[in-house]
Amino acid sequence: MSELTKHLESIIKDKDRVITGRIERKYLSDNLERKVGTAEALVFPASTEEVSKIMKYAYENEIPVTPRGAGTNLVGSTVPQGNGIVLDFSGMNRVLEIDEETFTATVEPGVILEDFQSLVESRGLFYPPDPGEKKASIGGNISTNAGGMRAVKYGVTRDYVMGLELVLSDGTVITVGGKNRKDTSGLDLKEIVIGSEGTLALITKCVLKLIPKPEEALSVLVSFDSLKEGIECVRKVIKANVNPTAIEFIEKKIVQLGEEYLGLKFPERDAAAFLLLTFDGNRVEIENNVAQLEKTVLENGAGKVLRLEDQKEAEKVWKIRGVLVKAVEAVSEQEPLDMVVPINRIDTYVNFVHELEKESGLRMISFGHAGDGNVHLCVVRGGRDDETWERDLDHALEILYKKAYELGGVTSGEHGIGTSKRKYFFRETDSANIVLMNQIKKAFDTKKILNPGISYVQ
Amino acid sequence: MSELTKHLESIIKDKDRVITGRIERKYLSDNLERKVGTAEALVFPASTEEVSKIMKYAYENEIPVTPRGAGTNLVGSTVPQGNGIVLDFSGMNRVLEIDEETFTATVEPGVILEDFQSLVESRGLFYPPDPGEKKASIGGNISTNAGGMRAVKYGVTRDYVMGLELVLSDGTVITVGGKNRKDTSGLDLKEIVIGSEGTLALITKCVLKLIPKPEEALSVLVSFDSLKEGIECVRKVIKANVNPTAIEFIEKKIVQLGEEYLGLKFPERDAAAFLLLTFDGNRVEIENNVAQLEKTVLENGAGKVLRLEDQKEAEKVWKIRGVLVKAVEAVSEQEPLDMVVPINRIDTYVNFVHELEKESGLRMISFGHAGDGNVHLCVVRGGRDDETWERDLDHALEILYKKAYELGGVTSGEHGIGTSKRKYFFRETDSANIVLMNQIKKAFDTKKILNPGISYVQ
Repeated sequence: MSELTKHLESIIKDKDRVITGRIERKYLSDNLERKVGTAEALVFPASTEEVSKIMKYAYENEIPVTPRGAGTNLVGSTVPQGNGIVLDFSGMNRVLEIDEETFTATVEPGVILEDFQSLVESRGLFYPPDPGEKKASIGGNISTNAGGMRAVKYGVTRDYVMGLELVLSDGTVITVGGKNRKDTSGLDLKEIVIGSEGTLALITKCVLKLIPKPEEALSVLVSFDSLKEGIECVRKVIKANVNPTAIEFIEKKIVQLGEEYLGLKFPERDAAAFLLLTFDGNRVEIENNVAQLEKTVLENGAGKVLRLEDQKEAEKVWKIRGVLVKAVEAVSEQEPLDMVVPINRIDTYVNFVHELEKESGLRMISFGHAGDGNVHLCVVRGGRDDETWERDLDHALEILYKKAYELGGVTSGEHGIGTSKRKYFFRETDSANIVLMNQIKKAFDTKKILNPGISYVQ
Repeated sequence: MSELTKHLESIIKDKDRVITGRIERKYLSDNLERKVGTAEALVFPASTEEVSKIMKYAYENEIPVTPRGAGTNLVGSTVPQGNGIVLDFSGMNRVLEIDEETFTATVEPGVILEDFQSLVESRGLFYPPDPGEKKASIGGNISTNAGGMRAVKYGVTRDYVMGLELVLSDGTVITVGGKNRKDTSGLDLKEIVIGSEGTLALITKCVLKLIPKPEEALSVLVSFDSLKEGIECVRKVIKANVNPTAIEFIEKKIVQLGEEYLGLKFPERDAAAFLLLTFDGNRVEIENNVAQLEKTVLENGAGKVLRLEDQKEAEKVWKIRGVLVKAVEAVSEQEPLDMVVPINRIDTYVNFVHELEKESGLRMISFGHAGDGNVHLCVVRGGRDDETWERDLDHALEILYKKAYELGGVTSGEHGIGTSKRKYFFRETDSANIVLMNQIKKAFDTKKILNPGISYVQ
């Protein structure tokens, strides 16, 4: 038995929470399971104290530690390196408190998003962040600053993280933030940890902001003769002050992929492109906003406005929207991208993608969050052999990221950089920024043992 | 002529932008002008390039640099130390762009808040952060993560900062963030700079998020027989989902100070305490929310609900609310505090203050942001001589901060720590957090030349 195993078993008495030897592939990879890493041990901690003890040992012995939640990430954020430890937080999944007086919840990082959403909604409360992957963990959502559908109205995960308990690389446990609505008392440490992909500290507790649950929601499907018209209309919608929760764009040909995958039919099929919007609040607000929306879109190129009053119909449409990456993946291997550009550049960017698709012969499927500039793009492998695929993909990514940055965009809106987007991120990011990121990494994790090899860490 | 002066004059040809020798007191202090620092030179830079050159020289020669905006801070955030440079950004006050397509504005840090608010509103846009001090600079607002009245609905300054141009301590110019609505591409450097009180980097450009201007606003004054009833009612109001922009609490005896100072009268005088709320949006939304508010507060202890439909009446009430610190200051020297506690602890905290007031014999005037737990508290000097005042104040602050932390609160909700609250902040903050803040300080500012001596920097 190795020293490491011996030590881990001395910390964690429960034998089935320490796995050494052959570790299942899925724990050494992300959701796509293409890049697979190495590790000597897989540990399922059950408490902050266990995490702290493991980190103390790892720090003293310079052992790499890669944290993971539900492993739903798409960019290799949970691919371990070397002979280290994978710390799987899925067992730390208790909702510790729902505090209706301060509108906060305190949860462990392994809590699954959809479970948490259901729980708070059953109490008349609401957790707005709503990334596409509902089976992600809250800890993972915080580590990637996950965005999702409702970001237009409600913002992203960062906006709902009020406090964190963290275990630092040397095992020290600290608390940053808490239940206060405002705080300008020294550097706001939690803000730099949010979105840091497990490279700065381990999250062991999360204080999340809740809001009262909106009384109702109504989705609306707007048809256009072209994607360009649809996306150009988005700005008018935002300016019209109708306060939508979500504004998504989808082309008909992409809808068809989702329809086929699920065996469901879209309620409106006679258009080249759609905007799918949701409104929430009380009935009066919704009616008022949707009436204003109708007026705005019909004056700005829309063909038809369909209110999805039937809840089942609305669910079906969102189900098709939600399944698009999987629908593409079912047809062929694909590389999922999520670059973000300023909201007035989406049409330019999507048109550029269409042109590149024609030129390169690589199929590229785009859809996404029109209301916040976050373009989801699947580059499809098709029948390419390994070598050709690697070469063609790398070439396409280089062009795609270059264009996004040219338009003022960045590598990722919500997936993170992970190990997959590292190369393109470095290529497009000013070296002075990278230096600073590395200095902050060092400030938190002197020995660089936390999620080594990821993203901005050189 | 000193080496420093010679060098500064070689960078800045315009002589009246470099002051050496006798520097006016106000440039060596904060808004209260009690703590006064020292500096060898006062410089008014006009461009990022000038700031960069000055920092390069300061870095090479380890010269302390203290940035300032409009100098409206209340906690000694702009009190320079040693024989260094005061960099006054008030001349860098151009609005560089209002981009209606991306709903952003790009401004220099010296732009004054109220000027900026007026300008964007004249274009049908809205910048929600609304700290009490309207003559503060945007750079100062960002450096303290200023909050203000509208934080209940709209959040604080942090929520509206999308990008920054920064000059680092060695003169390097970097850009962090931009016009993207989502971003999870590496560590989010701008988030740690926001609220860092000029200790990490100098802000030379700000990209701010705007929203469409709400069509209308309506303020409502609710009367209660006691402050306790008023504050207890706040939670019901939040839970009732009526989406107020602001929820302030004021006691009648405090209102009277404001009335006397301004020679104005509150429209409702027959109550011990008030909640003052604002609603904004379109008329339908406002009507709907205010109707729900009335129902909620009348069921929960309120005596009377007064809609301030007359715009002049509403302005008068907000003017009285806005002038309270100055009204107290006009009567006697006072120490302004702005601790924040979780929203369900305000009544406990304010009651504690009342008890302490009785016991200590020190007059303490409290009012503030009931909707977000941010208590403004003026400790009044009265006729005390210097020595007694210093002793009594220190004793009171020790007790007041201790209690705030006991309730889960922190030192400051929006003023910052500056030099004035340093002692109490250190006393109540975990040393592991302080160590980490110092390591981050070092990551940005190796030689510790930026705003030395402030807050968390030991």
